[in-house]
Amino acid sequence: MTAFFTLRWHAPDAVELLDQRLLPRREHYLHLRSAGEVADAIRTLAVRGAPAIGCAAAYGIAVEAVRCRHLDASGFASALQAAFGVLAASRPTAVNLFWALARMRAVHEALAGSPPIHAASKLLEEAHAILAADVAANEAMGRHGAALVPDGATILTHCNAGALATAGHGTALGVIRSAVAAGKKVRVFADETRPVLQGARLTAWELSRDGIDVTLLPDGAAGHLMATQKVDLVVVGADRIAANGDVANKIGTYQVAVMARRHGVPFYVAAPLSTFDFSVADGRAIPIEQRDPSEVTGYGAERWAPDGIGVFNPAFDVTPADLVSAIITEAGVVHRPDTQTLARLRADAATA
Amino acid sequence: MTAFFTLRWHAPDAVELLDQRLLPRREHYLHLRSAGEVADAIRTLAVRGAPAIGCAAAYGIAVEAVRCRHLDASGFASALQAAFGVLAASRPTAVNLFWALARMRAVHEALAGSPPIHAASKLLEEAHAILAADVAANEAMGRHGAALVPDGATILTHCNAGALATAGHGTALGVIRSAVAAGKKVRVFADETRPVLQGARLTAWELSRDGIDVTLLPDGAAGHLMATQKVDLVVVGADRIAANGDVANKIGTYQVAVMARRHGVPFYVAAPLSTFDFSVADGRAIPIEQRDPSEVTGYGAERWAPDGIGVFNPAFDVTPADLVSAIITEAGVVHRPDTQTLARLRADAATA
Repeated sequence: MTAFFTLRWHAPDAVELLDQRLLPRREHYLHLRSAGEVADAIRTLAVRGAPAIGCAAAYGIAVEAVRCRHLDASGFASALQAAFGVLAASRPTAVNLFWALARMRAVHEALAGSPPIHAASKLLEEAHAILAADVAANEAMGRHGAALVPDGATILTHCNAGALATAGHGTALGVIRSAVAAGKKVRVFADETRPVLQGARLTAWELSRDGIDVTLLPDGAAGHLMATQKVDLVVVGADRIAANGDVANKIGTYQVAVMARRHGVPFYVAAPLSTFDFSVADGRAIPIEQRDPSEVTGYGAERWAPDGIGVFNPAFDVTPADLVSAIITEAGVVHRPDTQTLARLRADAATA
Repeated sequence: MTAFFTLRWHAPDAVELLDQRLLPRREHYLHLRSAGEVADAIRTLAVRGAPAIGCAAAYGIAVEAVRCRHLDASGFASALQAAFGVLAASRPTAVNLFWALARMRAVHEALAGSPPIHAASKLLEEAHAILAADVAANEAMGRHGAALVPDGATILTHCNAGALATAGHGTALGVIRSAVAAGKKVRVFADETRPVLQGARLTAWELSRDGIDVTLLPDGAAGHLMATQKVDLVVVGADRIAANGDVANKIGTYQVAVMARRHGVPFYVAAPLSTFDFSVADGRAIPIEQRDPSEVTGYGAERWAPDGIGVFNPAFDVTPADLVSAIITEAGVVHRPDTQTLARLRADAATA
C-alpha cells in the first residue's frame, strides 16, 4: 500500500482526488461534485495516467448521476448524455477514458426506464468495480513483471506510470514495487519528462516516498546513461496500445525505446488490457494530443522562452512494436508483441 | 551581423560580455576586470559555447595582464600564472578553453623578460586575434555548410551553437544564417535542451531576433518530429572532437544523432579546428563535466523535484563518429569523418 491515494469516492456525493499539479510541494485533495469538474481535472492534469483517467471518468459519470438523482427521468438522461460528452472530450489519446465511459454507458443503457435514484446507485457501483479491477490488474501486472526484474537491477523509467497514474500500485512502477516487495534490490533512474515533468514531480516523489532508490535525470541524458552505465531494463506505461503492439505513451518514450534497442537493454511496457485498442491496426491511427505552448515556454511562474515563439508540443509519441521486448498485462507477459500474439492474449483473456 | 554581441574588449580595462543567464528576458552586459571574474562567468554560464569560452578565456588572461601591468616582473608573472590556473579550472569539456589558453601562454612565455606593460599589450593583441579568427572561422564554416542546406529545408538543432556560443555568426546557426543570407528559405526546430534550456532561451531568441523561422520543442519530442514530419538535416555544434571524429556536445546530442540515423536524416556537426583535440584517440577519453543537481531539480525560482532527490546531470555526451554524416569546419567539410580523413584535414590546414 502506498501512503497516499490517487482517487476515491467520498460519500455521499464527491470524487476525491489528489491534485497532481501541486505535487511534490503540496498533498492536496480535490472534491469534485459534477462531471464538468471531473473533466476539467482530467484536462488540466490534476489527474493523469491512462488507468487513472479511466477511473476518474467512471466516477465523473457516477458523480453526475448522484448529483442529478432527484431529477425526472428525462432530465436525468440529458444530464448523463452531457456528462458522457464532456468527459469523452477531455483528452484524446488514453483509450482507458473511452473504455471506462463505454462500461458506464452500458450500465446506463441497461437501466433505461429505472428510477434515476436507482440508476445513480448502480452507476456508482460500476465505478467502484472499475477502480477495484484496476488495482487488482496492477497487482497482477506487478506479480508477472517482477519476474523480469533481476536482483540488483538498474531500471530506467519515463514519465509516471505509478500509483499516481492508476487507482493504486501502478503499472511500470507497480512492477518495480512488486520486485522490491519480493526482496529484490533495485535502483531506478527517472527521466524528468518535459514538459509537464511527471518524472521529476511524480515518479521521484512516489518512489522516494516508498523508500525506493531513485535518481532523476534530464530526458536528454538517458542515452548517455545507457552508453556509460549498465542499465538492466527499461519499463514504462502506455496510453494506448494498437492491435499490432505499437505503443502510444508520453512524449520521449520512442527515443528511450530506440536507445534501449541500440544498447541491448530490454524495453518493457506495463499496461492493463483496458489500455489496448484492438480497433486500431497500428500506431498511425492513434490520435496524438497537441497541448498548449505554455507548457513548453516555461514552468509555473518561470517563463524562459521568448514571447510569441512557435512551439511543437505533442503529448505522446508512438513506439513501434518491434522495439518492445514484452508487454506486461494482468493476464500475463507477451514477449515480442505483434498482431498474432496480442490477438491470442485477447482471446485468452475473454475466456479466462 | 547580429543585433547583439557575445563578448568584446571594452577599453581600457574590461571584458564586456552579454550575460546569457538572463536571456531572453534581459540584454545585460557584464564588465569583468580580472581573470577570476571571467572564470566565474564561464563557470556559471554567463558565457558558454566552446568557441565563446575560448575567446573569453583569452580575454581573461588579457584583462588580468592589463590589471597587473604596473606590477614588477615577478608580481606580474605570478598573477598570470594564477590566471592561467583559475581559467583552466573553470570548465573541463570544451577544448577551445585549453586551446586558447595555450595560445596565450605561448605569447606570455615568448615575452618573458619584457616589461609587463609591453607583455600586457601583446597579450591583449593575441586575444583580439583569437576573437577575429573565430568570427572568420564561423563565416567560413557558414559558407561551406550552407551548400549542405537545401532550399526550403526543415532543420533540427540542439542546444545553442549560435552567435551566442562564439565570437559571432555561430557554428551550427552560422551555417543556417549563411544559408538564409544566400536566399534559401529554412524552418528551424530547436530542442529546448534541458537542463539549462539553451535552446529555449538562446537559440529561440537569437534566431527569432534575426527573423529566422524557429519552433521550440521539448527534447523528448525530436524523435516524434522525425517520425511524423520531413526533417531534412540536423546541425549541431561541438565542445570537443576526438581524433577519430567522436563528438562531445551538449547532453542529448547523442540521442538526436541516433534518431537522425534511424530516420535517414543527415547529422552535421559544425565546429572550428580549435574544437578538435587530436591528443585523444576517441570519445571515451573526453572528460564529461557533471554539473550541480539544482540545474535539474528546478529552474530559477521554481523547484519542482522532491527535496534531496539524487540527480544524474552530465553536461555533455559523446556521439560516435559513425553517426556523424559530416563535420563542417572553416577548412572545409569532412564527410564520414574518421581518423584518416581528420588527419588529412589537420595536415591540409597546417600547410594552408
